[in-house]
Amino acid sequence: MSGAPLIARLGEVVGAEHVLTDPELHEQYTIDWTRRYRGEALVVVRPGSPGEVAAVMTACADAGVAVVAQGGNTGLVAGSVPDAGSVVVSLRRLTAVGPFDPVAGQLTVEAGVTLARVAEEVRGSGWEFGVDLGARETATIGGMIATNAGGVRVVRHGSMCSNVLGVEAVLADGRVVSRLGGLVKDNTGYDLTGLLCGSEGTLGIVTRARLRLVPEPPERFVVWIACESWGDAVAVASRARRHLDGVDGLEAVDGAGLALTESALGLAPVFPDPPPVGLLVAWAGSGIPEADVAELVAGRRSVAAIDDRERARLWAPRERQAEAIARLGVPHKLDVTVPLAGLAAFTDAVRTLTEPSALFLFGHLGDGNLHVNVVGPDPDDVTIDEAVLELVAAYGGSVSAEHGIGRAKRRWLHLSRSAEERALFGAIKAAFDPRGLLNPGVLLDPVG
Amino acid sequence: MSGAPLIARLGEVVGAEHVLTDPELHEQYTIDWTRRYRGEALVVVRPGSPGEVAAVMTACADAGVAVVAQGGNTGLVAGSVPDAGSVVVSLRRLTAVGPFDPVAGQLTVEAGVTLARVAEEVRGSGWEFGVDLGARETATIGGMIATNAGGVRVVRHGSMCSNVLGVEAVLADGRVVSRLGGLVKDNTGYDLTGLLCGSEGTLGIVTRARLRLVPEPPERFVVWIACESWGDAVAVASRARRHLDGVDGLEAVDGAGLALTESALGLAPVFPDPPPVGLLVAWAGSGIPEADVAELVAGRRSVAAIDDRERARLWAPRERQAEAIARLGVPHKLDVTVPLAGLAAFTDAVRTLTEPSALFLFGHLGDGNLHVNVVGPDPDDVTIDEAVLELVAAYGGSVSAEHGIGRAKRRWLHLSRSAEERALFGAIKAAFDPRGLLNPGVLLDPVG
Repeated sequence: MSGAPLIARLGEVVGAEHVLTDPELHEQYTIDWTRRYRGEALVVVRPGSPGEVAAVMTACADAGVAVVAQGGNTGLVAGSVPDAGSVVVSLRRLTAVGPFDPVAGQLTVEAGVTLARVAEEVRGSGWEFGVDLGARETATIGGMIATNAGGVRVVRHGSMCSNVLGVEAVLADGRVVSRLGGLVKDNTGYDLTGLLCGSEGTLGIVTRARLRLVPEPPERFVVWIACESWGDAVAVASRARRHLDGVDGLEAVDGAGLALTESALGLAPVFPDPPPVGLLVAWAGSGIPEADVAELVAGRRSVAAIDDRERARLWAPRERQAEAIARLGVPHKLDVTVPLAGLAAFTDAVRTLTEPSALFLFGHLGDGNLHVNVVGPDPDDVTIDEAVLELVAAYGGSVSAEHGIGRAKRRWLHLSRSAEERALFGAIKAAFDPRGLLNPGVLLDPVG
Repeated sequence: MSGAPLIARLGEVVGAEHVLTDPELHEQYTIDWTRRYRGEALVVVRPGSPGEVAAVMTACADAGVAVVAQGGNTGLVAGSVPDAGSVVVSLRRLTAVGPFDPVAGQLTVEAGVTLARVAEEVRGSGWEFGVDLGARETATIGGMIATNAGGVRVVRHGSMCSNVLGVEAVLADGRVVSRLGGLVKDNTGYDLTGLLCGSEGTLGIVTRARLRLVPEPPERFVVWIACESWGDAVAVASRARRHLDGVDGLEAVDGAGLALTESALGLAPVFPDPPPVGLLVAWAGSGIPEADVAELVAGRRSVAAIDDRERARLWAPRERQAEAIARLGVPHKLDVTVPLAGLAAFTDAVRTLTEPSALFLFGHLGDGNLHVNVVGPDPDDVTIDEAVLELVAAYGGSVSAEHGIGRAKRRWLHLSRSAEERALFGAIKAAFDPRGLLNPGVLLDPVG
């Protein structure tokens, strides 16, 4: 179709300077963060307020044109890569913050506010945001809600959904639903906020959110513990959860990954001789429980840190895993959850499956969330991805722990979700967006 | 309609002895816990397994007969009171427990398992269930999920939804969806578990659940703090959340209620001379932070307890509020949330509104959840209920914090939910249950 009348109308809504028609300006919106997925947009629109988002959506619905909502475009599964002919609605200009409630510990932000900005806004208030992840400078709150982002503190504070009290969202026909009152308890019907959270832009466009904050801990502490195997690491992590009150991170990196951060990035090694698995236990609270920590690490090699600089040094080998692996080539990256009871056996099986390629395993051990990285096979050939995900399914796991389904994993959704569940997804999608205008091709097969 | 063919088929499914056709046997299933709502059932069916629930639902769907799922029948809003002609499906025979995963801290239970039984099952494992409430001996896990039950530890562990990793549920046509793998992170489509949670039996019948457990704290501690006003109590509660790492309860009772537990129930008084508001701070963890507690209570009257018996004694004036108030007559009980910023002003306004009736206010101050009890007006006249709920709405609150909407509050749903939200509720209901067979008349207007 010719988009001229729609483009004119969008210009009236947001101002012509915020309607990008020149494809040369589209690249940052149409190529994803991994640079493996490229789409094409009819036009990129940059509304400046929630009201403008609603007006943009109404215009697109009137024209029958599909819409891809986009935040920081830092997703890893092509969930915000547009199909040719769709309108990309970038939410990065929605950067208003407030109101903040210092008594309840709540903050309202617009969708385009970055995670780093949230941290800045509440600094010194006695509160902080419970979700943290590596892409904090570019990831936006709207995108993090749409993908139910996880990160390193899920074991303590839960995923993004658990930290959002309510959202305002624009529906497929331009109507707006809003739940920004900050009510912690509100049993008045279906949990629309929870349904929008993790729906990857297919049910509505989140424009604002009321965030639940958590008390800022006065002290932090991290310790790397050498483990003999993945099974050993799972056992130590479970003991830490039960006996170390205040654990807020349980991260694991295998020996190959620990060695790689030294050889590829030049980081000082945590252990001179890397163990099979390193477990990083992070703690936050008041009064470090030294006796409990001593009991946890008894008879093992361990390295601990309290002050900011030393903690950052110890976090680096975990936080820079993806960067180190990328030095070896383009990896196959699979973000999966495996039930803890089968996790050790899964790591053995995935090693056998991926030989002789280079395998790196790291992730969030409190949640059974492993990032499986395979370097060697042709990056464009998904044979190995499929084999790993089938193995995950055989272990009762999830084919996407925290990255979502997007376009990249749609073909494997059936490995984690039954026909009955997928039928309900389709029915829910039809209830919210009967014409299939919102992010078509993401998560579900396109309508029609 | 004549139910004879359906009754015969139900007998084949569950055994004739579990199909109660005699109305004399129906009373415990058709009269609610408050004894204010009475319904009528075609028949009461007591399936013995999730598979039997699915077969019962299929039979009812084939016959076009509505179904009311029921757990302990301890709800307070007539959410499980049947319409004449419907089939009550009691889930109390679904009492199987397991598997239990002591490494991950997870337990699967069937819907009819009581909250008290869950506590028994995990005792001594190092884990406990994060939700606790007064009706623990009769409230079932299925009912608690259907109503997203709250209770006294929401400030630390969240409501029921936050403590359920996944459910198995029977849909309106007898199909089953199941998510019992215990995956903490699982971003593979819409959150069906979250949607079923709190849906009051209108979208599906929960038959099993995978519960998330929390580490069992080695020590517990409670302290009552005398507060000068509701505003003062809100401020102290907020300070406790920020500065007392490990708070797991923030309960408030007004002076009238504190006095009443002494005069009506003969309980030993917490304070010889009750303050305007008493705040009970509960703490759980390892190593009581004595300096932080001292700072919190500085300059105030306070009463603390550590050992089990003394803690139970201090909890009693809070836990037995409803019982004490009932001695005065049948109260109007309204379970509401008000944003913390406006809570003190709301308490003043509700006092003015309800004069000269006796008013008792107590609740969960960490969440802004107040139980408003008014004794005096005719219990069958809802004028005062409506006036209080309109006041709640004017303060941006919720007309149901933790009890749900049921039949009793359906007429006031519009005070908390916009037309757009209610339209989405209807669309979701139609997606799950197009014929309106599940709990018709609860939460939403009946179909047709």
